[in-house]
Amino acid sequence: MTLEFNLWMQGVQSQMEQALSAVLPAQDAIPAQLHTAMRYSVLDGGKRVRPLLVFAAGAVVNAPFERLQYVGAAVELIHAYSLVHDDMPAMDNDVLRRGKPTCHVAFGEASALLAGDALQTLAFDLLSMHTLADSASHQLTMVNILARASGSLGMCGGQGIDLYSVGQALSLTELERMHGLKTGALIRAAVLLGSYCGEAISDEDRHRLDYYARCIGLAFQVVDDILDEEADSATLGKTAGKDAANNKPTYVSLLGLAAAKEKAAELKADALAMIAPFGEKARHLVMLADFIVERSS
Amino acid sequence: MTLEFNLWMQGVQSQMEQALSAVLPAQDAIPAQLHTAMRYSVLDGGKRVRPLLVFAAGAVVNAPFERLQYVGAAVELIHAYSLVHDDMPAMDNDVLRRGKPTCHVAFGEASALLAGDALQTLAFDLLSMHTLADSASHQLTMVNILARASGSLGMCGGQGIDLYSVGQALSLTELERMHGLKTGALIRAAVLLGSYCGEAISDEDRHRLDYYARCIGLAFQVVDDILDEEADSATLGKTAGKDAANNKPTYVSLLGLAAAKEKAAELKADALAMIAPFGEKARHLVMLADFIVERSS
Repeated sequence: MTLEFNLWMQGVQSQMEQALSAVLPAQDAIPAQLHTAMRYSVLDGGKRVRPLLVFAAGAVVNAPFERLQYVGAAVELIHAYSLVHDDMPAMDNDVLRRGKPTCHVAFGEASALLAGDALQTLAFDLLSMHTLADSASHQLTMVNILARASGSLGMCGGQGIDLYSVGQALSLTELERMHGLKTGALIRAAVLLGSYCGEAISDEDRHRLDYYARCIGLAFQVVDDILDEEADSATLGKTAGKDAANNKPTYVSLLGLAAAKEKAAELKADALAMIAPFGEKARHLVMLADFIVERSS
Repeated sequence: MTLEFNLWMQGVQSQMEQALSAVLPAQDAIPAQLHTAMRYSVLDGGKRVRPLLVFAAGAVVNAPFERLQYVGAAVELIHAYSLVHDDMPAMDNDVLRRGKPTCHVAFGEASALLAGDALQTLAFDLLSMHTLADSASHQLTMVNILARASGSLGMCGGQGIDLYSVGQALSLTELERMHGLKTGALIRAAVLLGSYCGEAISDEDRHRLDYYARCIGLAFQVVDDILDEEADSATLGKTAGKDAANNKPTYVSLLGLAAAKEKAAELKADALAMIAPFGEKARHLVMLADFIVERSS
């Protein structure tokens, strides 16, 4: 990781922490238990990969900082809500997340259910409240992009496929569809949304960004599976080896460790080739691709 | 109930059933279990009070039928998601809703959790996909109205207050705040959203509609409490007497039955006085007020 990237990343992460803290209702706003659970689940944790992608894509179109911050917050709120619900006993029954007790462990299942619900709503509240694009009609498109990416034909559908396939032998194609929805859809949305915040671009350029995002989203999951295989719980900040224990198919179980690593590297190379024409403006996207594939947690 | 009202109501209900069926993903769309649970939770049931309010308010501004149908569907999807999650074991643990097993009883808790999540998302998908107002900027306002009404400072917050106050003695003021959020916020949103679908109106007229909606929302809850006290499960289509059994405060427990009935009648009179200047255009709003206060289930 270069010094430039580290400074940029820490800057975005710190700014996102402030933005998220500002858009979440205060801890003592009624009902206080709900708002406490919402803040607990969002603040002080996470790499903020999706907001980083929003900012990096926004740089390609010279997007104003303030817009990117709200868009990054909206995407991160969707991500946070999905983790809160995914961790619940009826789903993955995870007790540890980002090194802290999960929301339902800390606040009870009812609060976790409501907190997740309200975090999702807050994302759409944010995307419709501030001026985030040069035209209201572009901004409506942005709302729709986030909704499509999050719903039953996007992220939530991916969680469903994951849920209903426990104990079943998934093929590589099925595994890719599942992850393409479960994690890929929101990562693509992050990049697309960032690209709507600034100067208009051609459909071809939008397609380049989307292709980058698809590769990176898939690489992200492949690396997650590799880390889950290799890491212990302390480094990962969540319960490790869980997928194998649940007999869930992973890239490592289907491809083997070496081929999985090769696949991640190939996806990164494809992603970078596609955004090469953007030159210097895409340098944060380039560095993020490195970061996502080389990370150790 | 007049014949005119009955025909209008049945027309809207039947049209909403078609619209909801069309906007929900097909039963066999992947993941099929999730889409089956979503369709089960929304279709073939309910009085569609919120869509009726959307249509009745839309009539005041001569709104196009097609817009009202999508807006009605969006509001109903939010309502449906809230019921699915509210019925879950961690919340009210209800097994019967609209005369059918609740979603988690029929499909399991994980599917109910995901179905509720995806129904919420679909509401925002709908509100941002079709042209629903004369300007995109008005339509963004509509997205924001729905988000505010649904989130932690609206409906979801009301559910939180309800949850955290079980076993506590709520005052009448606290009870009204809780219901103003839990059911009132979405009812107000339904009327406001309908009023954005057609001709521009003055702030004063918007205020009149909002005042009507506030009174009707409150009256709706007062009547719910009266019915819960008086009806048996068969008429109500859900488990009756549950609030009393849970020691939850109700208008009947705080005011007594006679005073609760008087309050409902007063709220209706206030609502009607406020929309009187709209004349004939508001006749569906007038009849809906009658319907909400005089209903027996």
